[in-house]
Amino acid sequence: MSATRYTYLGPEGTFTEAALRTLPEAATRELVPMVSVPAALDAVRNGDAAAALVPIENSVEGGVTATLDELASGEPLMIYREVVLPIAFALLVRPGTKLSAIKTVTGHPVAQPQVRKWLRAHLPDALWESAASNADGARLVQEGRYDAAFAGEFAAATYGLEALVTDIHDAQNAETRFVLVGRPARPAAPTGADKTSVVIWQREDHPGGLLELLQEFAVRGVNLMLLQSRPTGEGIGNYCFAIDAEGHIADRRVGEALMGLKRICPEVRFLGSYPRAGVETADVRGPRAGTSDADFTAASDWLARCQDGRT
Amino acid sequence: MSATRYTYLGPEGTFTEAALRTLPEAATRELVPMVSVPAALDAVRNGDAAAALVPIENSVEGGVTATLDELASGEPLMIYREVVLPIAFALLVRPGTKLSAIKTVTGHPVAQPQVRKWLRAHLPDALWESAASNADGARLVQEGRYDAAFAGEFAAATYGLEALVTDIHDAQNAETRFVLVGRPARPAAPTGADKTSVVIWQREDHPGGLLELLQEFAVRGVNLMLLQSRPTGEGIGNYCFAIDAEGHIADRRVGEALMGLKRICPEVRFLGSYPRAGVETADVRGPRAGTSDADFTAASDWLARCQDGRT
Amino acid sequence: MSATRYTYLGPEGTFTEAALRTLPEAATRELVPMVSVPAALDAVRNGDAAAALVPIENSVEGGVTATLDELASGEPLMIYREVVLPIAFALLVRPGTKLSAIKTVTGHPVAQPQVRKWLRAHLPDALWESAASNADGARLVQEGRYDAAFAGEFAAATYGLEALVTDIHDAQNAETRFVLVGRPARPAAPTGADKTSVVIWQREDHPGGLLELLQEFAVRGVNLMLLQSRPTGEGIGNYCFAIDAEGHIADRRVGEALMGLKRICPEVRFLGSYPRAGVETADVRGPRAGTSDADFTAASDWLARCQDGRT
Amino acid sequence: MSATRYTYLGPEGTFTEAALRTLPEAATRELVPMVSVPAALDAVRNGDAAAALVPIENSVEGGVTATLDELASGEPLMIYREVVLPIAFALLVRPGTKLSAIKTVTGHPVAQPQVRKWLRAHLPDALWESAASNADGARLVQEGRYDAAFAGEFAAATYGLEALVTDIHDAQNAETRFVLVGRPARPAAPTGADKTSVVIWQREDHPGGLLELLQEFAVRGVNLMLLQSRPTGEGIGNYCFAIDAEGHIADRRVGEALMGLKRICPEVRFLGSYPRAGVETADVRGPRAGTSDADFTAASDWLARCQDGRT
Repeated sequence: MSATRYTYLGPEGTFTEAALRTLPEAATRELVPMVSVPAALDAVRNGDAAAALVPIENSVEGGVTATLDELASGEPLMIYREVVLPIAFALLVRPGTKLSAIKTVTGHPVAQPQVRKWLRAHLPDALWESAASNADGARLVQEGRYDAAFAGEFAAATYGLEALVTDIHDAQNAETRFVLVGRPARPAAPTGADKTSVVIWQREDHPGGLLELLQEFAVRGVNLMLLQSRPTGEGIGNYCFAIDAEGHIADRRVGEALMGLKRICPEVRFLGSYPRAGVETADVRGPRAGTSDADFTAASDWLARCQDGRT
Repeated sequence: MSATRYTYLGPEGTFTEAALRTLPEAATRELVPMVSVPAALDAVRNGDAAAALVPIENSVEGGVTATLDELASGEPLMIYREVVLPIAFALLVRPGTKLSAIKTVTGHPVAQPQVRKWLRAHLPDALWESAASNADGARLVQEGRYDAAFAGEFAAATYGLEALVTDIHDAQNAETRFVLVGRPARPAAPTGADKTSVVIWQREDHPGGLLELLQEFAVRGVNLMLLQSRPTGEGIGNYCFAIDAEGHIADRRVGEALMGLKRICPEVRFLGSYPRAGVETADVRGPRAGTSDADFTAASDWLARCQDGRT
Repeated sequence: MSATRYTYLGPEGTFTEAALRTLPEAATRELVPMVSVPAALDAVRNGDAAAALVPIENSVEGGVTATLDELASGEPLMIYREVVLPIAFALLVRPGTKLSAIKTVTGHPVAQPQVRKWLRAHLPDALWESAASNADGARLVQEGRYDAAFAGEFAAATYGLEALVTDIHDAQNAETRFVLVGRPARPAAPTGADKTSVVIWQREDHPGGLLELLQEFAVRGVNLMLLQSRPTGEGIGNYCFAIDAEGHIADRRVGEALMGLKRICPEVRFLGSYPRAGVETADVRGPRAGTSDADFTAASDWLARCQDGRT
Repeated sequence: MSATRYTYLGPEGTFTEAALRTLPEAATRELVPMVSVPAALDAVRNGDAAAALVPIENSVEGGVTATLDELASGEPLMIYREVVLPIAFALLVRPGTKLSAIKTVTGHPVAQPQVRKWLRAHLPDALWESAASNADGARLVQEGRYDAAFAGEFAAATYGLEALVTDIHDAQNAETRFVLVGRPARPAAPTGADKTSVVIWQREDHPGGLLELLQEFAVRGVNLMLLQSRPTGEGIGNYCFAIDAEGHIADRRVGEALMGLKRICPEVRFLGSYPRAGVETADVRGPRAGTSDADFTAASDWLARCQDGRT
């Protein structure tokens, strides 16, 4: 039954599964690994799954382009939740393997730049070959194809391996952001610590247009948290922008900014308003003076009075 | 009966009266000259008159500060019409007076800079003394106190004088703008060639604030036609701004811009939306792409769909 | 000898003379009252005087248009100093006159709005007539033409009058700003608490142009202290802007902003860089991060290195 | 001898090699394929090669993150040339293979999204497996591991294959931009159709900072051609921006904009000014009014005159 099924970027034992399991409702859902981001999202589009969890942004590698491009095109989907997971790798080996015995290592290509310095320091002579996923690398170690795999520590048990070294990450604060995506529906009510995602396309003949787009946010006091350009597929120099803004579409400053974008852009795709991961409402700096909902309401009332001649 | 009485900046025979008489309804009103702009406006405020016509902007001398300050403070009033009058002076003399016989000339102090070059060229030795108004100057010539007065040609008949020279004006395109002011009421419907006047006060502690105010207009594609700073009376460096913007408060781009100002300014006073003098609707360049009422409506509809999850 | 002569807006006994006498060098100059601002400035232009002190801005009445227009046109002049004087009036009477005996009062027209409330409260039935200057009003009281005159307390002695009431000013913080104007020369070195004055003309065909002008200042972190629009004399809607900006033309952020204006405006007239009156260097908030002279020098050096390939 | 050696992202037979061979000087250089972008660039850094050609932007897949990240960090390098190559794939098979006989296909992972629709239409049942490069895929077909490979048509000869289908590309206008990178040196003189690349870092505590950065370009009339955000590696939400701007560092508007960035950003890395590929000088719209070198020179001269008092 699709309402209880969540897909995710598989295979089992990856960071995406770990991220999905941090959501309380995951305990009561059927969690189905898929071979790719498009496959995970298509299951949602065609009704086979209620939602999909996919990575969208990595603090080392940047935006996950497959996810950004899938959300920007095709049948509309909407983001309902985000999960931010610290990324640290374990070096998984068959039980009993010693560090000095490791000649070959594997892992997902994205993992490599995150463990490169560690490898140079501790296994300078080991040969790296890429695997289709971190979990797949673990499987290949289990099968004896490689001596060690970089993967999440949680993958050790699944593949009967041992975590020889843990907490490996070249960069401080390495983390990945995942989003839970479903079919379009009314967003959850604002929590006070929300984020709104959109994709916007610029008019082609319009240099300096990005500045105008950003001013639609700035003039209403809406802060941007992410701006990611993506090619539109129409030749070098043609870009759309994935933008995360602070606040909820139900906040009047955000709504007015989105309408401003809608008026000047040939296309704007709303990707959802949802709670910010790991941010408490109490930690959020309130809206800039003059941009709260109360300020908007007072200004609307004043305008109505002016229009009626009741100044 | 006040509903049929219009006051104006007197005395009779001034350009203000001439401007007032260009309004069709003036023919059916009792036109009452007043000694000053405050007096003309106070008659409206206290119900003695339905409206007052006063000068507000002169292409040679600039904003008429008495009018700007009266509209910016005190009990609110609203502008309903504007009249722009080309300003050309006649040299009025007692019948038979020759140019060579003119030793003394008079006129309103504002007239002087507008005829200075003419005087230097044609009456280099004549002595100028100021009169309380151009019409008053004409009266003083009638009484024999001065040999000639600069005034509107239309004043000649009133005072039994002769227009010895006409069409005197140092500057090309000299003109004065007058406004018809009444008590606050619902503005007339947009004509497509409208103007909106406001006075706005800045927050004191806010350098760069003027740029922010102007961006509220710019981001919504509302052009400014006039920006005039006036002291607030609270010390050097404290200013408010009288602004004329293109468009009508019923235009959504104008309404949203005004609300934006209202949210960031401690005070905004709406002074009215009214037809632009001498401008046909057909001559007005339409709103910038994305700022028409239809664009606003389409964007509102889109936002509502997004908020409902019907993307 | 002109080098020792300073003109000022006369007559003797006005606030302008009082302002001039606050300048240390005034003690060693011949101080010559002139009948008008143009006359005072023309004396400088034609070499009869080394400098002229004229009022430029009044906290109640706004910009002094005669001064602004004279500085904006004609042969260039430059501002070297400013003086800000608190404005308080004394009610001058012939010795022995009682308040209850005052039936007529006089003073300069600009004085009237500054004492209107006081008059209403203390002399509600007195008749006001304007005089050519506050000092002239005092003279007319001396001659017996009026019972009392509003003028500076310092004028009492000159005209043999008595200050019946002192410190009269309807508005709190009423003050007038005067400038000392000379022929163009190299400005004095920066003090750290300086002001730069310019007049700028916009291109006619360019709505939204004022925003662009202000951005030239804003992007370099230069705060504006005054923006005053003045008609260019070419018809309603044609304006130039008199602008006072924080800082000195020798400050690199100010110099670059002025060059930016020069490039986009058909005309920019530099009116001088001079110390701010009544402001100590220690009280001035330093330039915004990234806009000090040191920041400009470091950026220039970096650019030169980049251009040479020494990144 | 390194001065005659150019590295490129190998192996032989890839689009990068084809791009490199479009450069006239390639005919007289030793062209050395490298296993990765970092390897190609490190050869330049350590003096083993004079320059390296690497892909930087793909119209379907977006920025080439390995290249962007390598240029943004480590020992500085500089871009001297760009090459834009239309990307069209050929389906390479062993001579005599028929389309109906193809069960397995391979190619670089980046190729897959560019041929996905073609595959669905013409080989719906074929199994895709990724190869390390398009050329490597061709080699694997030669060895019999796969039935067909997507690669550049030019690779057929190298591997003894036949181009069964040519000009395959799902997207119209698919193209890839490559850059020729060397050690820092003085950029070539402006051609009039130039591009300048920089990477800039924002101050962390500064929401709205991107708008400020873009204004440094906009206020000097410098158009942006590319804005690509890249994580700094310091956690989600920390980005730097790779920017391509129109013009040459020797153009004064570009130089002043870069200095403006340098003053407000904690770090700016200049990546070079070089001719725009495929753009003739005659096709370039000249600089915006007021931003030509002549305008800058005139404004500098004017400022110097003002500073000297020669207004």
